[in-house]
Amino acid sequence: MIEYRTLKIALLGGGTVGSQVARLLLENGAELSSRSGARIELAGIAVRDLDKPRDAALPRELFTTDAEQLILGADIVVELMGGIEPARELIVKALNSGADVVTGNKQLLAVHGPELFDLAGQVGAQLYYEAAVGGAIPIIRPLRDSLAGDSVTRILGIVNGTTNFVLDRMDVDGDELGEALAVATELGYAEADPTADIGGYDAAAKAALLAGLAFHTNVPLESVYREGIEDITKEQVDLAREMGYVVKLLAICERIADPATGEAAVSARVHPALVPRRHPLAAVHGAHNAVFVQAEAAGDLMFYGAGAGGVQTASAVLGDVVSAARRHVAGGPGVAESTHADLPVLPVSAAVTRYHVTLHVADQPGVLAEIARLFAENGASIETVVQSVAGPAGAADGQSPTATLVIGTHAALEASLAATVEALRASAAVTSIAHVLRIEGA
Amino acid sequence: MIEYRTLKIALLGGGTVGSQVARLLLENGAELSSRSGARIELAGIAVRDLDKPRDAALPRELFTTDAEQLILGADIVVELMGGIEPARELIVKALNSGADVVTGNKQLLAVHGPELFDLAGQVGAQLYYEAAVGGAIPIIRPLRDSLAGDSVTRILGIVNGTTNFVLDRMDVDGDELGEALAVATELGYAEADPTADIGGYDAAAKAALLAGLAFHTNVPLESVYREGIEDITKEQVDLAREMGYVVKLLAICERIADPATGEAAVSARVHPALVPRRHPLAAVHGAHNAVFVQAEAAGDLMFYGAGAGGVQTASAVLGDVVSAARRHVAGGPGVAESTHADLPVLPVSAAVTRYHVTLHVADQPGVLAEIARLFAENGASIETVVQSVAGPAGAADGQSPTATLVIGTHAALEASLAATVEALRASAAVTSIAHVLRIEGA
Repeated sequence: MIEYRTLKIALLGGGTVGSQVARLLLENGAELSSRSGARIELAGIAVRDLDKPRDAALPRELFTTDAEQLILGADIVVELMGGIEPARELIVKALNSGADVVTGNKQLLAVHGPELFDLAGQVGAQLYYEAAVGGAIPIIRPLRDSLAGDSVTRILGIVNGTTNFVLDRMDVDGDELGEALAVATELGYAEADPTADIGGYDAAAKAALLAGLAFHTNVPLESVYREGIEDITKEQVDLAREMGYVVKLLAICERIADPATGEAAVSARVHPALVPRRHPLAAVHGAHNAVFVQAEAAGDLMFYGAGAGGVQTASAVLGDVVSAARRHVAGGPGVAESTHADLPVLPVSAAVTRYHVTLHVADQPGVLAEIARLFAENGASIETVVQSVAGPAGAADGQSPTATLVIGTHAALEASLAATVEALRASAAVTSIAHVLRIEGA
Repeated sequence: MIEYRTLKIALLGGGTVGSQVARLLLENGAELSSRSGARIELAGIAVRDLDKPRDAALPRELFTTDAEQLILGADIVVELMGGIEPARELIVKALNSGADVVTGNKQLLAVHGPELFDLAGQVGAQLYYEAAVGGAIPIIRPLRDSLAGDSVTRILGIVNGTTNFVLDRMDVDGDELGEALAVATELGYAEADPTADIGGYDAAAKAALLAGLAFHTNVPLESVYREGIEDITKEQVDLAREMGYVVKLLAICERIADPATGEAAVSARVHPALVPRRHPLAAVHGAHNAVFVQAEAAGDLMFYGAGAGGVQTASAVLGDVVSAARRHVAGGPGVAESTHADLPVLPVSAAVTRYHVTLHVADQPGVLAEIARLFAENGASIETVVQSVAGPAGAADGQSPTATLVIGTHAALEASLAATVEALRASAAVTSIAHVLRIEGA
């Protein structure tokens, strides 16, 4: 019989993920011990309210409201409370007490990550966060370790399950956004207040983490450009389908050349985008997540799986717990986060992308020439023009007849493309701009 | 200016992958050093023939024929020679000298892996092999670390790029197998002698490695059931398409219950299989690889990317070099391979699968009843029967008329399904069995 050293786990938070982590720690203790070389013991679960009903499989005596006391005796602290405070303060206490920390708190890391990683480095502890991006999908280790000898150039991520579920329903089942969101809420894929998901805030926090990791650079959350899917209509999704695209909410992290200096820099942005149907990301359905990574040597990689869910996310948390336990057994200092590259982080205007502009124009001679001139003047060039069959009626009620044009551009600076759209909006030749979407992955 | 310790890298092999690894080590030295915390120096490249033409970017003085001498001064030995000897012997020498070893040699690991991992454990060195399975795709670390707190139940892998390219051509372009293989050879996706790929030998070695890692069990190469794609016809691929499937060569690793004892056991097999069109693996085109992993908590995951290619595989090798360098800097013992579970490894007859049997039968009353009886007698049950429109003509030249049936079964033991096919073959009601394919991923 092997004598294992015992490692005490303090679990902060007894919600959806936390209760699954607790259950798996209790059920699979022997297996986890043999994999990590230490006896892993769940010391307790800190919660706010002891009277809330809990999973019957979890012994009542494990629950406590005294998180600070629980942390004191722990070797590994697992933070699954969410939110900024008191999560930040408790993680600082845990690291200072010498414990390793496992967290799934993307919001906290996107805002306070640098100071927490610095503290971990100073005290010789480790901060693990596989569960913070992509739920169960292993993405942190591949980026940090497997691709450590390569240079990531670009990440296109479907990192929010709620919005992917909604957009997939709109595409596959023909739902309007509101209908799809109602189904998502009913199935438990969307929260009562879906703003964080639908508005792209959740994806933006993940984009900041992914960009920081991929480019070894601190990427502050406020530097991530963000658009949600609130304004995506069934009409847009249908039009995209007709033209061979699918609309996805993407987190895009890129290593780009600073247009001002030509030097290497980083850009991170979240917005709905047109993805070609043959792209691997187009096949990501329902609430699934996927992270598509392009690296100089490795080429195209994709990591696919469940992006959320209590038990799925618990898998990532437990992987980190075993890693932390192995490190305790081995005694090594582990690998600290490194932001050695420290590239400039640029605003979205410096990103290079392609636009798909749907606009209504007066159906008169010279209009297309005028529109082409506006594109050229603003440094954008047109790749495709499609005149839509279903232009809005106008002639019947005495106005000039109008036509609907769908214009696809070549790749250009976001600043040029945005300026073109402003010029179109101001032009007398343009009746209205129906919608604008970026094309990614083409 | 940071003072880095210097780590010497000995590279064994100057072929497609080796020369890319050497080039990247030279070009990206500063970046690799800042990522690993050590100055990484390519000490030399051991090759068999100094006179062979080499990449002009690699200084001639780096090349040597004295691999043993090169190993002696090295901190990290990168073995990319392929084959069993002298690779095995040189890795043993490297480990005994205290060096960490990085290898992409799946054949060697599938045959001698256990003894090499044992030796590494004894001397306190590490043996890294991310490049041995799935080329550039990070799959070893996710299985070993990210899923360390979960239980993998099943792996379905497209792990051979040549066969996926050939099957994809047959499906998408309507090629015959020979035509598709000729294109693969022309494009450099297939070797002059494609037996290792087409016969499933390469995939079998990878299946042994994946199963060993996923189930913490030594899985000997000879225990992996293997069928190649030699006999796959355009007709089979077309029929599969009509029925909503695509034919893929899969490496299948499963945790199953031993039918004899009910105890947990492991099965690994490689064969062509029908994959439903909506399965993520069906969207893996060309020479790409993908590993689909099912785990108890994480659910379905997929890892996708380039399965071969010099520079792509070099990415995986360099990731391992950086991991080894970080370990040297940190001084920790790393994580040894663990085969603690040591489950029984069962033959293919114990696997549970589904068959798709296409057969020609006499077009007479009572034939279907007779066939159904043969299935039932052998413990297999029929899910679907489709009578093909294009049965071979027979009545015209005086023989009895025949019909073509495509029978899909429910899940059953491979032994039962194989016995059913034998019984069909012996039955007077059956003119001939056109082909048999297993269905996976449904």
